[in-house]
Amino acid sequence: MDLNKLLKPRTVAIVGASEKAGFGGDTTRNYLKFSKNLDNVFFVNPGRDTIFGRPAYHTLADIPADVDLVILCTPQKTIISLLEQAAQKNCGGAVIFASGYSEVGAEGKALQEELVEKANSLGIAVMGPNCAGFANFINGIFAFAFLVEERDRSGNIGMVSQSGQIVLGGLDSRTMGFSHVISSGNSCNVKVEDYLEFLVDDEDTKVVAAYIEGVTKPDKLIKTFRKAAIKKKPIVILKTGKSAKSQQLAASHTGSLSGADKVLRALFRRYGVIEANDLEELMGLATAFSWLDKLPKGERCVFMNVSGGEAGVMADLAEEYGIELAEYKPETKAYLQTLVPDYGSVNNPFDMTAGIGYNTPVMVKAMEAISRDENVDVICIAYTITPEVWDDTITHMVEAASIAKQNPDMKPVVWLPFIEHTRDQESADALKQAGVPLLPSGRYGCDALKKILTFSTTEFEDMEAAIPETRKTKTEGLSEYESLCFLEKHGVTIPPQAVAATAEEAVVAAKTLGYPLSVKIHSRDIQHKSDVGGVKLGIRNETELKKAFEDIMESCSKKAPDAVLKGVLLKPMLKPGTEMIIGVNNDKDFGPMIMIGMGGVFVELFKDVQLAPAPLSRKQALKMIHSLKSYPLLNGYRGSEKCDVEALAKLLVQISEMAAECKETVKELDINPVFVTPEGAAIADALLIKYS
Amino acid sequence: MDLNKLLKPRTVAIVGASEKAGFGGDTTRNYLKFSKNLDNVFFVNPGRDTIFGRPAYHTLADIPADVDLVILCTPQKTIISLLEQAAQKNCGGAVIFASGYSEVGAEGKALQEELVEKANSLGIAVMGPNCAGFANFINGIFAFAFLVEERDRSGNIGMVSQSGQIVLGGLDSRTMGFSHVISSGNSCNVKVEDYLEFLVDDEDTKVVAAYIEGVTKPDKLIKTFRKAAIKKKPIVILKTGKSAKSQQLAASHTGSLSGADKVLRALFRRYGVIEANDLEELMGLATAFSWLDKLPKGERCVFMNVSGGEAGVMADLAEEYGIELAEYKPETKAYLQTLVPDYGSVNNPFDMTAGIGYNTPVMVKAMEAISRDENVDVICIAYTITPEVWDDTITHMVEAASIAKQNPDMKPVVWLPFIEHTRDQESADALKQAGVPLLPSGRYGCDALKKILTFSTTEFEDMEAAIPETRKTKTEGLSEYESLCFLEKHGVTIPPQAVAATAEEAVVAAKTLGYPLSVKIHSRDIQHKSDVGGVKLGIRNETELKKAFEDIMESCSKKAPDAVLKGVLLKPMLKPGTEMIIGVNNDKDFGPMIMIGMGGVFVELFKDVQLAPAPLSRKQALKMIHSLKSYPLLNGYRGSEKCDVEALAKLLVQISEMAAECKETVKELDINPVFVTPEGAAIADALLIKYS
Repeated sequence: MDLNKLLKPRTVAIVGASEKAGFGGDTTRNYLKFSKNLDNVFFVNPGRDTIFGRPAYHTLADIPADVDLVILCTPQKTIISLLEQAAQKNCGGAVIFASGYSEVGAEGKALQEELVEKANSLGIAVMGPNCAGFANFINGIFAFAFLVEERDRSGNIGMVSQSGQIVLGGLDSRTMGFSHVISSGNSCNVKVEDYLEFLVDDEDTKVVAAYIEGVTKPDKLIKTFRKAAIKKKPIVILKTGKSAKSQQLAASHTGSLSGADKVLRALFRRYGVIEANDLEELMGLATAFSWLDKLPKGERCVFMNVSGGEAGVMADLAEEYGIELAEYKPETKAYLQTLVPDYGSVNNPFDMTAGIGYNTPVMVKAMEAISRDENVDVICIAYTITPEVWDDTITHMVEAASIAKQNPDMKPVVWLPFIEHTRDQESADALKQAGVPLLPSGRYGCDALKKILTFSTTEFEDMEAAIPETRKTKTEGLSEYESLCFLEKHGVTIPPQAVAATAEEAVVAAKTLGYPLSVKIHSRDIQHKSDVGGVKLGIRNETELKKAFEDIMESCSKKAPDAVLKGVLLKPMLKPGTEMIIGVNNDKDFGPMIMIGMGGVFVELFKDVQLAPAPLSRKQALKMIHSLKSYPLLNGYRGSEKCDVEALAKLLVQISEMAAECKETVKELDINPVFVTPEGAAIADALLIKYS
Repeated sequence: MDLNKLLKPRTVAIVGASEKAGFGGDTTRNYLKFSKNLDNVFFVNPGRDTIFGRPAYHTLADIPADVDLVILCTPQKTIISLLEQAAQKNCGGAVIFASGYSEVGAEGKALQEELVEKANSLGIAVMGPNCAGFANFINGIFAFAFLVEERDRSGNIGMVSQSGQIVLGGLDSRTMGFSHVISSGNSCNVKVEDYLEFLVDDEDTKVVAAYIEGVTKPDKLIKTFRKAAIKKKPIVILKTGKSAKSQQLAASHTGSLSGADKVLRALFRRYGVIEANDLEELMGLATAFSWLDKLPKGERCVFMNVSGGEAGVMADLAEEYGIELAEYKPETKAYLQTLVPDYGSVNNPFDMTAGIGYNTPVMVKAMEAISRDENVDVICIAYTITPEVWDDTITHMVEAASIAKQNPDMKPVVWLPFIEHTRDQESADALKQAGVPLLPSGRYGCDALKKILTFSTTEFEDMEAAIPETRKTKTEGLSEYESLCFLEKHGVTIPPQAVAATAEEAVVAAKTLGYPLSVKIHSRDIQHKSDVGGVKLGIRNETELKKAFEDIMESCSKKAPDAVLKGVLLKPMLKPGTEMIIGVNNDKDFGPMIMIGMGGVFVELFKDVQLAPAPLSRKQALKMIHSLKSYPLLNGYRGSEKCDVEALAKLLVQISEMAAECKETVKELDINPVFVTPEGAAIADALLIKYS
């Protein structure tokens, strides 16, 4: 659906325009106050001839022109008829504030379905219902239902939110400047993914900020993420639904289902989407990327303080957030030492003392020296800016940062305050002008800085996404043997195996496989083989093998009388090693996700797993393995031999490629365990569930 | 040392008083602007007859009265002589701004020692050197070296900081009100612990906020913590020194050594001291406790929002910070449902909608109903307050909170904004007036709320502290047998054991102990017994025992030729169980600390340990065990039998009592492992290091 008439209309009609308080009046007042062009807006109100001194039309039909966009401030029951009237005016977009749709149960859902059908048939792109509208600061269109303070908000952040209040939060910010803000509401026939794509494509938008409750167009979401990753345009997303409670709230708020949270996070990591965990992070990160004139080339940071105490606090925070402290080159250190008084010493965090912090030109020199140091990638000035400035230090330091940034070679500089409710607007404006992001305070600021550094230095690996085209529900579970055969057929290395329907066949097979062997029941119907006496390990010769065959068949016949027994599965005993678990889960929206963790309590108790979308590159597979907290156990823990992590990564890649290739057929795969030894990695057991 | 003349002087002299910028001038201006009584202040400056129109004296001697406190704004080299002159005036306190002491290496350290000696001999309590001074808002004394904005800052927070800048940060806050602020600087003969004690004792101080870099009077610190715990007066502490870098910075900043960080944190937990991790937390927590009119009686919270999106964000944050969401009683829920429009639903977090949030009297009713609900302990209104209010909702909600709090039965109410740089002063003042703390934003606010709830509901168990009186350094390591005997002698239950110098003695001992046995070399000189063939397990009879004896003695003689071998240690084989580690480390400042963790990778890789000062009560011991992430492995993991956690706790208590009793003699104890089974807990190995 084309969004141009909705988001960049040439003509606009406000239906329900009014001078009174409420959606109609507030929208009218907002439009008059903030829109650039008032020649092409038409007010519609059956009971008025003028509104705020401008002509009003009684119906849409009365308007003497085509209308690209209608802003409907009227109640739910009027909407369908108004859309029909709007269509007569060649309308292509509608903003619907009315609520009473999918957020209020079955009846509302039906009304929303009717609305979607009508809008689609009329070719009208609908924002809402149950939304707060939008503002396009580039073309000067302000179609927003809540009154906001009067000031310029134009800038380069494109924001879309399923919550109107959160858009309002953005508009309230004194530091954010926007290209577009969009409150998508219940997302009728235009979804949050459509807006995201619009903003990623939009040349006036430098950074995208989004609050989302649920996903309905996974393929478009991924396509949009990929586009942004290739452009290196930052997308910052706050996604609710971590807790069961917030999932329930999202359902009753905009009728959204939150979707599998861990899966989304894995996708964020893949595409370099920056996750915000609350509003402060969302706004802070968007502002930081918006102001930043260039991205840091590495992660090594120098903190500049004007207090020994604050330098100490900064050091602790930097360590907590994993921010690398740059090591000065000796000549930098020697030069800086000449700038501080005798009692000062040059560290990082660097307590500049009054010698530098209270003296603009000296501080510029210090910043230039630090920026020239090839061991430094970014400078962070850490000092609190009070609500009104009466402390000269702030003035000196803001001035110094501004002057230093005039040098085009100056590396990226950010500013981190320690305490909030503290923003002198003049200082903030000067820093914005200079391209020095004013981060949120303390821990928020450190979190933002770390995320900026990670975004800036992570290279995007463009793996083709594997989103299934079909949605099947009927499934069948394969036996271990069948599962392994399936894997082998799709390129996954598996250890030798054979099945035997009789003891004699087993003996023949054993000649090829070699002893000692593991012998397990071969049946699709038995999942927990040990529980029914279906497993014998360490079988050393023909005699033992024959007995094992008979014992297993007898025990399983007795203990699982309904199971179809197809004989036994024979495999040479694997050399035991560190036990890993690899799993595949085919997400209904985003396709196969691959999981790895260490067996036992590491996965279960410490939740030490890594998840990523399939397929994986070798580098991505290694990164997943290295990211496990239990990784040291693979890597020569306490003097033991190092396990073959490359082999494990290779296996992970093979499995991920299988999962991507079979995205329409494989529902789940559980490989538990994989034995990893210094010599390699071998699958010891596998259970695959296919769509049938 | 008596601090009254220092902190509550009746007469004050400012030496180096001036009209110029700098310490002297700024202190003078501050004093004139902020002090209540200007009759008893004397300006001293050899070159001036008047300063700001008031008489100035050329020397201290010229002052026609006694001087309780001198504020020395002059350089380091003048200080000793000035103290001597001050003593002539019966001076008992001095504030010294000058730097160049212990923060600048050996020479400065010597100067500081000289200063301490002089001050002690003259009976003068010194604040500083290298400090920013103090303000006593109760008696109206403002002896502070940095200019601050003009406004009333009086209140009930007592703040002490080793960093002057951090005191300044507090004074800059628009929400904090103080009884006292103290910048202790290098803490010459009055230490940060002395100020802490002063503030805990002080009736005008409701909450104590402290920034500390190092501890020098551990006994006084503990005594002060204990006093505060008994009074339930909150102490909020920001302690740097988590990272190696900040430890290094503290040393060069005020000459402090950061001290064992984990030990301090264990003490904080014991005494209910609230830890802040950065400045925002320090200021936010202090403000919250300062404004709160009463402490919550439980931890169950209702969040009141005016946005479905923000309610979702709130739910995720509450879960992340472990804040319990109250479950309404049915009648509360039914009543609230009557207050919201059709499209609203009553949840927690509760999206009140415009029906409640935009309507003061209705919101008061909602708050009263929620407060009456016996399932609710605290109400948190979560809404952002913009810098200037043009959104009526804020006005309505602040009003509602204020009115609701007039009811003396109203439960504690706090306010949590989502986004910072957002404080309308009028709203903030109204909330303060109402006893509704305005928390810092988002995650900071949640962290503060959780800490308030924990502080409010945790009962203090007054265990006698075990701080050693002597400091010894020479140590000796005991053998396993000696270690176990030592433990037994001091009340710790140990399994049966015997030593045997010959094979024959071993056979005799075995008759009492019973087979199977473990046999280990008995020698102080061999720590890693297995490495030298000094361990044989599962010895079943006399023949095996004799052979084991000979093998062990032979192998150890060969592989540890220098060790004195005293024979073997015999113990009945323990039933294997879950392996725990218990350790004691006698901190040089704070005495014996006891540690517990699960053996193997849990301690080493996941750092899953708990630490607490000895001795422990049963309840404290159980809490430590329950707090381990690996605790589920003791508690019937995956259908296994539950281990005897009570027995483990009992052992932990015994060991902690031994450690407290032997605080002058035991340096370290390493019990690894303790086997915990469903039947009990038994020490399998122990190594004790004593002071000799």
